[in-house]
Amino acid sequence: MATHREIQFVKVPDGMPSLDCFRVVEAALPQPGEGDVLVRTHFLSIDPYMRNAMAAAGTGRYGLALGRTMIGRGAGIVIESRHSSFAPGDAVQSEFGWREHAVLQGDGLRKLPEDLKPLSLSLGVVGQSAATAWVGLHDIAKIKSDETVVVSAAAGAVGSAVGQIARIAGARVVGTAGGADKCRHCIDDLWFDDCVDYKNSDIGTALTAAVPEGIDIYFDNVGGDTLQAALHLMNDGGRIPICGQISTYNSTGPVALQDMSMMLPKGILMQGLQIRSRLDRRDQALDQLFEWWRAGQLKYRETISEGFESAPAALVNMLSGGNFGKQVVQVV
Amino acid sequence: MATHREIQFVKVPDGMPSLDCFRVVEAALPQPGEGDVLVRTHFLSIDPYMRNAMAAAGTGRYGLALGRTMIGRGAGIVIESRHSSFAPGDAVQSEFGWREHAVLQGDGLRKLPEDLKPLSLSLGVVGQSAATAWVGLHDIAKIKSDETVVVSAAAGAVGSAVGQIARIAGARVVGTAGGADKCRHCIDDLWFDDCVDYKNSDIGTALTAAVPEGIDIYFDNVGGDTLQAALHLMNDGGRIPICGQISTYNSTGPVALQDMSMMLPKGILMQGLQIRSRLDRRDQALDQLFEWWRAGQLKYRETISEGFESAPAALVNMLSGGNFGKQVVQVV
Repeated sequence: MATHREIQFVKVPDGMPSLDCFRVVEAALPQPGEGDVLVRTHFLSIDPYMRNAMAAAGTGRYGLALGRTMIGRGAGIVIESRHSSFAPGDAVQSEFGWREHAVLQGDGLRKLPEDLKPLSLSLGVVGQSAATAWVGLHDIAKIKSDETVVVSAAAGAVGSAVGQIARIAGARVVGTAGGADKCRHCIDDLWFDDCVDYKNSDIGTALTAAVPEGIDIYFDNVGGDTLQAALHLMNDGGRIPICGQISTYNSTGPVALQDMSMMLPKGILMQGLQIRSRLDRRDQALDQLFEWWRAGQLKYRETISEGFESAPAALVNMLSGGNFGKQVVQVV
Repeated sequence: MATHREIQFVKVPDGMPSLDCFRVVEAALPQPGEGDVLVRTHFLSIDPYMRNAMAAAGTGRYGLALGRTMIGRGAGIVIESRHSSFAPGDAVQSEFGWREHAVLQGDGLRKLPEDLKPLSLSLGVVGQSAATAWVGLHDIAKIKSDETVVVSAAAGAVGSAVGQIARIAGARVVGTAGGADKCRHCIDDLWFDDCVDYKNSDIGTALTAAVPEGIDIYFDNVGGDTLQAALHLMNDGGRIPICGQISTYNSTGPVALQDMSMMLPKGILMQGLQIRSRLDRRDQALDQLFEWWRAGQLKYRETISEGFESAPAALVNMLSGGNFGKQVVQVV
């Protein structure tokens, strides 16, 4: 019997996940049914929401449970098709789970453009990460030109897309990131107007200095102290898409906000951003992102971890801030 | 020289306001200029936001400063008109400030329907309080029929309007209020489906029992523990207009939220509701409210304080939860 490897989620972490939260297993190679395609996994996407999914295991919210194959998006090549729209050699990205091969329904599956190389980009700068940024800025924050946008985890996959999409929309963009290298990358490579290094400054003081006209949109990827500092600097009518709260995921206490008194007098909007409940807009975003990418308007960096079995370590690395841009696992 | 009385704001309160935060003064009777009307004040509106305005004195946010006449809406009768659209005897409501007479610009001033009696209703059930409820439910919460709506300070001017407007929209309505009398009023008179008495129960336990299908909209008038309890019970895609945080206004510490971790996974929206930045919608709301009121679809109660000079005491009473329905001051 043909087999392949999968990685199962076997332990709910207390604080930062450890490698023994996962287990590599040998499993039967899945077989495509009528209307399905069988895909060879080339890249796995490693994302902050996975930490939330692990914490919510068994609630049904992310479709993850103990002992089940880990969830996650992937990009790969069709090797067998039982759907009329697909043929071997077609490139696709979708929800694969941590599997060396995935069986996917052909209906509703998006075929990737042939000029999209490497395939890993379909997970980041022209994938779900950037689509999340686009949807948050347009549908929650309703970005307008000349506004000031602050984004945290600015050198990450979502953050770097937020900054570039906001600049394309005509906004002034300030990032926050951990370390001088990441800040330099945001300013020099991604053309942010400014970037605050939260590891080497007091975030409140440094952010205040960086936004003399206040903040219209704070795109939150980290929560905690940065969210609080931004909240104090919001202008009337400010908007805060909450896309991640990575600074709090591995803490064991509740996620508190020390002072929310300005929400009411300033009419501030705060909203959790769940891309899975906005899939129609995600697909519109992907079309727009491909266009910008072809026109050379989107820069990116990737942190690539080699080998299928490195996925757990790649996740820990990303949750520790060890990534520059999109964290992916190269499987083949 | 003709004079009248005004009440000035003379001390920023630390905690609950006291009567000596205000001073009654004798001032020259104001004279209407070209295009103005002179109005005799019949009722003053007493509202929770006034506590915020006092705290924000001098920031320009509410147009209040120490030593200035207290802000606030009023309803009254035109006694002299220098505007072609108004004649003596016309009833109007607007921003009067705490004055026995007010000079108002005729342009943009709304004339009250002749059948609206008593005039105090133009401040509550068919006034700014109910319009705030309408705008919060429709524009922030985007209410749909069959949803579950929870509203705090349910027996107050805004809360009682929220419940009734939500029921008209086809929602299930649960209130929270302080004391058995207020809860009975919400259920028996205002036709709420249920009401939780936070003074005689654990708010988390009681609210959980009252919303077996979770909460789709929590209309927040109080903040604090009730907001936190509701947040834990929100359904995916839930919405929270923040209209008041009266439980926190008179505390001297920051307004904290102990656990906001569910905002992201549930895609919850929270937004401060400032009616003054939504004036076009307020006027639409008022038209709708008049229609419902004429059809007998809106119930109300008022707590009426007698005499102009009683305004400070009326404010303290309302901030202490001593009011049933709309708190007003009857001036004449």
